[in-house]
Amino acid sequence: MAWWKVSSAGRDVNPDLASERAAPSFHTETLTNILDGGVEETRIRRSVVSVINNDPVFSREYLYFKTRSERYEGAIRNIFHVKRKIKEMGWDEDGREVEYIYRALGGEIGLNIHNVFTKCIRDLGTDDQIAKWLPLANNYKILGTYAQTELGHGTYLRGLETTATFDPATQEFIIDTPQITATKWWPGDLGKTSTHAVVLAQLHSKGKKYGMHPFIVQVRSLEDHSALPGITVGDIGPKMSFENVDNGFLMMRNIRIPKENMLSRYSEVLPDGSYVKRGSDKMNYFTMVYVRVSILRGEVLEALLKACTISIRYSAVRRQSELKPGDKEPKILDYQTQQQKLLPLLATCFAMVFTAKYVDKVYNDVYNDIRVENFNSLPQLHALAAGMKAFATEICSSGVEVCRKACGGHGYSLFSGIPTLYTKVVAACTYEGENTVLHLQAARFLLKCFAGGQSGISLPPTTAYLSSPLSSVCQAATPLDFLNPEVYLKAYEQRAYRLVSSAANKIRNLVESGIEQYVAWNSNAVELVKASIAHVHYITVKIFISTISSLSDQPEIQTVMKRLCDLYALHGIFTSAGDFLQHGHLSGKQLDMVTAAYLGLLAEVRKDAVLLVDAFDYTDQELLSALGTYDGNVYHNLLEWAQKNPENKQVNPVFERYLKPYLQSNQSKL
Amino acid sequence: MAWWKVSSAGRDVNPDLASERAAPSFHTETLTNILDGGVEETRIRRSVVSVINNDPVFSREYLYFKTRSERYEGAIRNIFHVKRKIKEMGWDEDGREVEYIYRALGGEIGLNIHNVFTKCIRDLGTDDQIAKWLPLANNYKILGTYAQTELGHGTYLRGLETTATFDPATQEFIIDTPQITATKWWPGDLGKTSTHAVVLAQLHSKGKKYGMHPFIVQVRSLEDHSALPGITVGDIGPKMSFENVDNGFLMMRNIRIPKENMLSRYSEVLPDGSYVKRGSDKMNYFTMVYVRVSILRGEVLEALLKACTISIRYSAVRRQSELKPGDKEPKILDYQTQQQKLLPLLATCFAMVFTAKYVDKVYNDVYNDIRVENFNSLPQLHALAAGMKAFATEICSSGVEVCRKACGGHGYSLFSGIPTLYTKVVAACTYEGENTVLHLQAARFLLKCFAGGQSGISLPPTTAYLSSPLSSVCQAATPLDFLNPEVYLKAYEQRAYRLVSSAANKIRNLVESGIEQYVAWNSNAVELVKASIAHVHYITVKIFISTISSLSDQPEIQTVMKRLCDLYALHGIFTSAGDFLQHGHLSGKQLDMVTAAYLGLLAEVRKDAVLLVDAFDYTDQELLSALGTYDGNVYHNLLEWAQKNPENKQVNPVFERYLKPYLQSNQSKL
Repeated sequence: MAWWKVSSAGRDVNPDLASERAAPSFHTETLTNILDGGVEETRIRRSVVSVINNDPVFSREYLYFKTRSERYEGAIRNIFHVKRKIKEMGWDEDGREVEYIYRALGGEIGLNIHNVFTKCIRDLGTDDQIAKWLPLANNYKILGTYAQTELGHGTYLRGLETTATFDPATQEFIIDTPQITATKWWPGDLGKTSTHAVVLAQLHSKGKKYGMHPFIVQVRSLEDHSALPGITVGDIGPKMSFENVDNGFLMMRNIRIPKENMLSRYSEVLPDGSYVKRGSDKMNYFTMVYVRVSILRGEVLEALLKACTISIRYSAVRRQSELKPGDKEPKILDYQTQQQKLLPLLATCFAMVFTAKYVDKVYNDVYNDIRVENFNSLPQLHALAAGMKAFATEICSSGVEVCRKACGGHGYSLFSGIPTLYTKVVAACTYEGENTVLHLQAARFLLKCFAGGQSGISLPPTTAYLSSPLSSVCQAATPLDFLNPEVYLKAYEQRAYRLVSSAANKIRNLVESGIEQYVAWNSNAVELVKASIAHVHYITVKIFISTISSLSDQPEIQTVMKRLCDLYALHGIFTSAGDFLQHGHLSGKQLDMVTAAYLGLLAEVRKDAVLLVDAFDYTDQELLSALGTYDGNVYHNLLEWAQKNPENKQVNPVFERYLKPYLQSNQSKL
Repeated sequence: MAWWKVSSAGRDVNPDLASERAAPSFHTETLTNILDGGVEETRIRRSVVSVINNDPVFSREYLYFKTRSERYEGAIRNIFHVKRKIKEMGWDEDGREVEYIYRALGGEIGLNIHNVFTKCIRDLGTDDQIAKWLPLANNYKILGTYAQTELGHGTYLRGLETTATFDPATQEFIIDTPQITATKWWPGDLGKTSTHAVVLAQLHSKGKKYGMHPFIVQVRSLEDHSALPGITVGDIGPKMSFENVDNGFLMMRNIRIPKENMLSRYSEVLPDGSYVKRGSDKMNYFTMVYVRVSILRGEVLEALLKACTISIRYSAVRRQSELKPGDKEPKILDYQTQQQKLLPLLATCFAMVFTAKYVDKVYNDVYNDIRVENFNSLPQLHALAAGMKAFATEICSSGVEVCRKACGGHGYSLFSGIPTLYTKVVAACTYEGENTVLHLQAARFLLKCFAGGQSGISLPPTTAYLSSPLSSVCQAATPLDFLNPEVYLKAYEQRAYRLVSSAANKIRNLVESGIEQYVAWNSNAVELVKASIAHVHYITVKIFISTISSLSDQPEIQTVMKRLCDLYALHGIFTSAGDFLQHGHLSGKQLDMVTAAYLGLLAEVRKDAVLLVDAFDYTDQELLSALGTYDGNVYHNLLEWAQKNPENKQVNPVFERYLKPYLQSNQSKL
């Protein structure tokens, strides 16, 4: 057994978990390599994770007992220690190791937005600005943040109220948050750490407005860290998670900064106050897309993979109630209802990993186009990233919560590791584009494609199906027919087509009847969101299918993946049956067949479930879960962890203060 | 304006909220009275809430900044202060005032399980036992808990492993937790407070087993609060919420307790070790039902009502993005997608309040029957309470999270008040019967009724429809037809009927084909859960409709409630369309009509939304939300609350320790 699979306590593996691994139908290590993107990639990841896991400075052993302040301090300590570690190990600071470090630390690392600050300078600064600021930032001689969102405005950037007014007399900008709602709100690292900020503000010069631009503003003294004159800055208070991050607020009262603090790669104010624009600002737009693509790959998927690992291992160990009267209590994973909760999510993990790889590829292709000034495929990528970010964050966060509840009472303990995953990942439904807003953006693109497709314009690959005419009804005649990917892919395609075309037609009819476009749009918004979801869902099924066909040199793994793909697709039909039935592509009888096929798959996939999550290859330290350790000694873990609680080692002050006077109010012997 | 509606800061109401209240279509105070159950009930509730809100000892102003230990200490302080207050105000200790106190404190009160301990003694003890223990418990001379759940067993009580073995030689019981999994786990108040516990243990006497029985065990010293010999006791560690509760663990190693510590109202061990049972233990069973009924009424509904109040008020104040090009940013409540998130939940609040009142009534009727030894209607009540508890906790907890996300980024701040509501209410999906298990129990009853109904046995009112034959398809021909309660109630009835009958038939066919009953049951469990949900959903629609007809003396309120009922019912069809289409009761065209009617209702209900949540009548102190105050000054609140953060008032120790060395590593001037 490899080192990373030996229980840290050196204990035997719980026989109930060992039996799940006794007769694997595929080689888990090979699957791990496929997920990582190659044998070498697995090796690098493990070596980084091992270094981090074995360094006591990074230990997360007492994490669940820590206060917000302690979490923040730990994260700051970690980032500086990481920097030393990177140097010591000779890792590449911009390489994939950094991603693995973040993964191994479970995000307990500070100054993440300082990196965004640095990236802003690099991307938006002139060469002179880069030469001046970058070395300071890289060596932490200044600590930056990125201040865009305001109290009154998040999603709608044009509504931001902070102003930067050019004063030609002094060659300065006056930065101002003119009312409460203009207060910068949420920037990470700002609450207690940053000395500087890239502030996004509406540029005014010579009485004219030029929209949002980035300015470097110093907010705290480098000497004593106090707020500079005119600045009010602080922490915005506790959140649902991210205890380690000091999200902050920032008010600026007519702060003066020198003219050269406006980041001017793409636009500049000349000494006389006139405004000059250079090049395209589409790169800005592209950065937003980049962030959404990274979210997908990063912690959003991680959360679901970890939650599935924990809940599936626990379900193979937890025994409860009875199935067969008189028999030993069964593993809860043997209940169909438990399988129905966890196994479609396990299939979703793979669907999402393969989708993320696909989106990455599209992203890289478009990036290469853009570098030669070809922006043609940017709208497709933008819509794909928007819809996919909304779809994935929703499905992953709600999925994590399903996993948690499937662990029963113990899932509610922080020791299960899942509450923390949920409260953190669910934030991604809101940040970097609120999901409903993103679906509506994606729907706008779909409607454009549909209109184009209907008038013969050729469509990008992800929406090509919108130009084909409606096909006939589904021909499946048995449950087995529904294990044919062509059959279910067609059903998904038809569903998306019909929802997009229905919304498009309703809007067109309204507009033709004299209703204003914006009213027609808003009164169909609920259905537009449904159309976007159906489209993205279709894409994920399509990607899953094509990934399977690429696995023909690994027949055993291909077989397992095919089952998961079937499960993913049929579960979607089962749970959104109305969409598939409404326009008659499927009949009620066929839905019965889908149900039978789907329930049959649950029992099949159940056999591989533990091995499949083993292939995700999380160490016990990464999972940080009493229920999810590789050895399955869950009750032992819970008890041991509870006894680590510092509060259990001290006298309870409440006893002296409140309880004793009552308990001892009378000398009666009991 | 009544006192409780004046902003605590004496500020003007935000004009965006004032305009929502300018032309009410109904009298909110009347609706409040209906919800409370009468004018007098509203008066009492307000007077209690006012006393609690105005006592500085109970202030929750700094709650969101407090650590677990501080929350625990505050809750203990509060319970003792409440006792004094009750005496001072002359309130009834067993009266409804206590419920209102709990409501006003948002649950920040300790010793809740001490009350269960007390109730156990009262219900399960002999007269002698009551005389001995009750005065001690009532005066806090001992502090108790109720220790049932173990590390290895929650739902399945028969699996509990703690033993109580009678030793006739000493006339003692030996209480033992023979292995790790037998450790008592989760009891509230046990972690740091209790001195005694009612321990549920498997009774052994003279080599025979007699099942679970209750025993009083002392766990800590009354002198110094240390664990007694043979006892290991402590706090189980942090949870997703309930920071103020010290859930604990308890290991007992052959603890000896006197024979008279077995609570013996219903069964007893005689000095020679023989076992005597008296009377029915159905009351025990009834207690479980009681708890589920109370959950419904209590914090589960509260959480959704509060979350709707907060998110709807905020949505009338938050302006974002654009609808009509060039116009002022609209209130987010004017977006159809926002209405789709919040307004069906608002309708759900009323559906659930009316349902809870109905279940209460059934409960009281059955209670009266039981008092005259008539247990006939207990199975119906048990199934109703089980299914309804599962349905309501699921819909309320997921609904709270929808409300939170609908508040965008600010919903993620604890200051919004909603994260805390969610992390707490979601626990109710698991405790007092895990929801899936409860749905399966309810389904078992439904299948029994279905079989009975088919063979002509008369059924209780809630399941009477299962004996009627299937009716024809829906006759609705326009969207307007779907605003007829008879039409949609029929659709719900048919859906439930078809799901119950389909599961029953599948199981019967399997059994007839030679499959064992338990296998047939398990392989249809997913559909059985669906059937239970459909049944409960039908009941809630039915109750809503009948409540409306009882409001004929309040025509304006009746009109508003009718719209909400329509919305509740049509939203359910819209979101679970597959169930209604599959067997052909509705056609695809009719689903289009449902959709049109449903979306039309959103725009209608939106007009009354703020007034409807005003009628829930929560004070600002109860809501504890920066986004939900009556005056709508949300941005002012957020900023003010952030500045209250004690951490913003002190120098950040991390600066000296970690940041300064970097920031000052070089004297370069910036």
